[in-house]
Amino acid sequence: MLHLPKTVLAVGSHPDDIELGCGGTLARHVARGDRVIMLVITKGQAGPGDVAARIIEQEHAAATLGAELVWGDLPDGRVSNHELHLVHLIESVIRANRVQVVYTHGVEDTHQDHRAVALATLGAARHCQQVLTYESPSSYGFSPRVFVDISSAMDKKAAALRCHGSQVADSAMVCLDAVHSQAGYRGFQSRVGSAEGFVPHRIVLEV
Amino acid sequence: MLHLPKTVLAVGSHPDDIELGCGGTLARHVARGDRVIMLVITKGQAGPGDVAARIIEQEHAAATLGAELVWGDLPDGRVSNHELHLVHLIESVIRANRVQVVYTHGVEDTHQDHRAVALATLGAARHCQQVLTYESPSSYGFSPRVFVDISSAMDKKAAALRCHGSQVADSAMVCLDAVHSQAGYRGFQSRVGSAEGFVPHRIVLEV
Amino acid sequence: MLHLPKTVLAVGSHPDDIELGCGGTLARHVARGDRVIMLVITKGQAGPGDVAARIIEQEHAAATLGAELVWGDLPDGRVSNHELHLVHLIESVIRANRVQVVYTHGVEDTHQDHRAVALATLGAARHCQQVLTYESPSSYGFSPRVFVDISSAMDKKAAALRCHGSQVADSAMVCLDAVHSQAGYRGFQSRVGSAEGFVPHRIVLEV
Amino acid sequence: MLHLPKTVLAVGSHPDDIELGCGGTLARHVARGDRVIMLVITKGQAGPGDVAARIIEQEHAAATLGAELVWGDLPDGRVSNHELHLVHLIESVIRANRVQVVYTHGVEDTHQDHRAVALATLGAARHCQQVLTYESPSSYGFSPRVFVDISSAMDKKAAALRCHGSQVADSAMVCLDAVHSQAGYRGFQSRVGSAEGFVPHRIVLEV
Amino acid sequence: MLHLPKTVLAVGSHPDDIELGCGGTLARHVARGDRVIMLVITKGQAGPGDVAARIIEQEHAAATLGAELVWGDLPDGRVSNHELHLVHLIESVIRANRVQVVYTHGVEDTHQDHRAVALATLGAARHCQQVLTYESPSSYGFSPRVFVDISSAMDKKAAALRCHGSQVADSAMVCLDAVHSQAGYRGFQSRVGSAEGFVPHRIVLEV
Amino acid sequence: MLHLPKTVLAVGSHPDDIELGCGGTLARHVARGDRVIMLVITKGQAGPGDVAARIIEQEHAAATLGAELVWGDLPDGRVSNHELHLVHLIESVIRANRVQVVYTHGVEDTHQDHRAVALATLGAARHCQQVLTYESPSSYGFSPRVFVDISSAMDKKAAALRCHGSQVADSAMVCLDAVHSQAGYRGFQSRVGSAEGFVPHRIVLEV
Repeated sequence: MLHLPKTVLAVGSHPDDIELGCGGTLARHVARGDRVIMLVITKGQAGPGDVAARIIEQEHAAATLGAELVWGDLPDGRVSNHELHLVHLIESVIRANRVQVVYTHGVEDTHQDHRAVALATLGAARHCQQVLTYESPSSYGFSPRVFVDISSAMDKKAAALRCHGSQVADSAMVCLDAVHSQAGYRGFQSRVGSAEGFVPHRIVLEV
Repeated sequence: MLHLPKTVLAVGSHPDDIELGCGGTLARHVARGDRVIMLVITKGQAGPGDVAARIIEQEHAAATLGAELVWGDLPDGRVSNHELHLVHLIESVIRANRVQVVYTHGVEDTHQDHRAVALATLGAARHCQQVLTYESPSSYGFSPRVFVDISSAMDKKAAALRCHGSQVADSAMVCLDAVHSQAGYRGFQSRVGSAEGFVPHRIVLEV
Repeated sequence: MLHLPKTVLAVGSHPDDIELGCGGTLARHVARGDRVIMLVITKGQAGPGDVAARIIEQEHAAATLGAELVWGDLPDGRVSNHELHLVHLIESVIRANRVQVVYTHGVEDTHQDHRAVALATLGAARHCQQVLTYESPSSYGFSPRVFVDISSAMDKKAAALRCHGSQVADSAMVCLDAVHSQAGYRGFQSRVGSAEGFVPHRIVLEV
Repeated sequence: MLHLPKTVLAVGSHPDDIELGCGGTLARHVARGDRVIMLVITKGQAGPGDVAARIIEQEHAAATLGAELVWGDLPDGRVSNHELHLVHLIESVIRANRVQVVYTHGVEDTHQDHRAVALATLGAARHCQQVLTYESPSSYGFSPRVFVDISSAMDKKAAALRCHGSQVADSAMVCLDAVHSQAGYRGFQSRVGSAEGFVPHRIVLEV
Repeated sequence: MLHLPKTVLAVGSHPDDIELGCGGTLARHVARGDRVIMLVITKGQAGPGDVAARIIEQEHAAATLGAELVWGDLPDGRVSNHELHLVHLIESVIRANRVQVVYTHGVEDTHQDHRAVALATLGAARHCQQVLTYESPSSYGFSPRVFVDISSAMDKKAAALRCHGSQVADSAMVCLDAVHSQAGYRGFQSRVGSAEGFVPHRIVLEV
Repeated sequence: MLHLPKTVLAVGSHPDDIELGCGGTLARHVARGDRVIMLVITKGQAGPGDVAARIIEQEHAAATLGAELVWGDLPDGRVSNHELHLVHLIESVIRANRVQVVYTHGVEDTHQDHRAVALATLGAARHCQQVLTYESPSSYGFSPRVFVDISSAMDKKAAALRCHGSQVADSAMVCLDAVHSQAGYRGFQSRVGSAEGFVPHRIVLEV
């Protein structure tokens, strides 16, 4: 059976969220021939780094992974005030691109924007057959049972994260050592070298 | 990318447990070219039907699905008294056949043998990269997020179940109408026609 | 001991939500002599069908079940922006009618309005002794332990749903076959013919 | 609608377990005209007090509640070694008496006999439409959503517990002050005076 | 090893919330020499009692416990509409006072303000090493495993609650008898006399 | 306030389990002046390495941590067949040494001995005020909220693990790289350098 290329969408609240959560997995999709779209909901106005710099950083990171980049237009920190707009935004990307596989934040997260994006994506992707939630530095109670082996993609993930220089320098939440520890830990849990872990919202397994 | 055939093991406590839980999924594996082994831990001595009849029923059901059949030697109803033996039994089948994908009971089940088989399989399959738990009529709190589309295999599943004539006739737990309702409900949840639902213990997704 | 008639309130976000979740149970309440009020929070402006049609559909459905109908005034899709107003709205209906039994959405639901209505109802009903949450097509992780036998009310439930012609025709979430599969599955779980399942928020059992 | 008397079974591991968990609820059943059977699985050989005394204490407690008493024959502390026998024992009481409503331990309990009795009862009562689990001093993670108002039965509960003089005197787990605190706390949660809390395994609500 | 005094912050939505949830624990911190700050997010405009009275009541209660009082400026009942402002408000108190230990509402609560304050505090306290959530009369599913022995502080807790005369008189949620029952129940669970229970968000234990 | 030395008990099923789960934390206890007892329930007869070697390895590891070593006498792999004996064994160590703080396996673990030891310890420690469960390579669903900073004890932990040469060489479950990844990941979650994570069964916090 031949692998038919898929269209994959990863949704994140701020520049760097997607790379932290599933950057290695996206690199694997690209390597396999899938089309990958990154939808970044805000431009990270409220964090360290100015917006112009963060836009360029995110563009470089997407290029590093081989993904297309789409920007949302929501205000950093206030995403939950625009719930319906957010659902429609994500739905429009899913429909326009016939997205089949979706990655987003987990719903248990201490950052208000992460929770809002997670929940809106679950609603927008209600007809998709594969929807997985990824881990963030602000996740809690995240106990994955689904894993992707990113041993061959760890370099790409690290390279994409290093594109976000403003965050690596100034955010306690973006720490490359921690990224490697997490990948090693999730890899041990899944009996591979390095891994990213996911909590599935819905998977229709191809058997 | 070509599909490499896999070796799949389904473990059940009694004749008919595997068919109820994942018969359609096993039929799909067979259709795809995978090798499927059914390991039935007891011969169902404690239920309706005599043992000789149940052995023949189970052989017919395995043949209907296109699966190989392996019998365990544990006493129906008393499986949990032989925990170490059970783990070794399942390990030996996994090793001898280089099993990659494992299906077993869910751990929340009101039947004592189901719980014991579920837990022993999780231990025995600790090095396998795909371990999924299936639903039984005695499951409780079973909330699947992983599904397999069995629309094309529903006939095989029903045919395999009908092989267990002693149970269809005399056990309130084996009811073909309920099997169809469940498949339709799980199908609606997963946006396909008919489905079987699974709670993943561990999945390494091939991306 | 005679059955004293009760006042029952069902709260739903959009026309048809209540019928999908607990229409059979409401028909049973009516048959028993209870007074049943349906509070529909929005008029479904954002879904398929125009508002005028949906109002008439909902009126017919309520009449079919033998229930009174009360409309809320919140905007479809944006309910969560009006949380305090929503709590006060539901409280006012509870107080004005001395409601004893309350049904509402479950809190784990991918639709933003369903979550908002669920949470607001739990707050508004904080003094009621029976508060049950029902299942929707957009529910996830819904694992009911409380059931109502709707075998004798299945026809009423189906008739009430057919009143919502705009949804049956155009919404993938309203599917009569799926409604029957779900009722059969929940019935098998609860050892009756057809059932609706509920996750209890609070029940004071009459013993 | 007249109340038809029901047959109620409460299952406990040791003398006094049932009274602690649901003594007030059983008194309410008796007051309403229901038949109540208490099945005590062991005679408490491993705890404080000698067996002869504990038998008499339990007989007095059952009489105080107005319940019939049936003794199991399993060894205190080793119940889990006799799982199949235990299931058969409970099944036989359910069948012989056409039991409709069942109370038993919760499954999260630090005492090995409590866990074994809880699980065996869930299996034995698989065809009963109302199965509720009660709280013990050794419960953990017990978060009830179902309650019974025992304000009118608190005296009976306390009287039944005082019959177990050997435990009130010598077991840190049997403390009448704590019983009253718990009843007040569960009562506040359920908006009544005093209550017992339950985690439902399965309830078919009579609507 | 000497005990180094710590700075402790308790966050509550309305006057009296903190006292109900962790008043005894705060009194213990004060007795030990820790600095305690109470941050009350709204002035309780929507509840019984006028605002001027509630401010004075809260000031007396804080003085009774030996704590400093800081007022937030959010509107009672509508806190969730101001999520980013709320996070910044709590962050500013944490930073300005180098807070090490944080107490806040649990996230499962039927009051919309309690949920909003709970979630915002988890975000604002993301760098603190001890963050504990407390119980409210509107909590549900609250199953604490962490306790503080308040036997020596029960009088202070009761005295602080009595300062809120407008609530003790007119709110069904503030009931001193229930406060004592809860303390006794949590005390029994934790093997001490009287206790407050907590669900930990994050604790770095000092070992 | 001076730190009063405590008596700490760690319970593990096999040689090396305790070191993997809480070796760093035990080293911290020793550094602080606490007395630490390691109770190893079996001699690991069923794993790689002969028993004589494993006894010596475990003795060296305990000495490395500065802990006392006590051996149980149960058969590796069959611990659950001796549940009452196991509870009594652990109780006797707790009583004889007036143990205050207890560490044991988590209850969700795919190894049958780990589950049995975890559950028996919770029962045996029912009167202790601090009972924490630790993580194993065979844990699943382990989501810690309580952490101990082991940055200063990481060397001791690694040294103790290296004493178990037979396991480091031959067990896929004992992998020093994975131990370091896990410590780094748990450290990032708890905002310290390296950490061990725990799921609390019961903690009475000293405030």
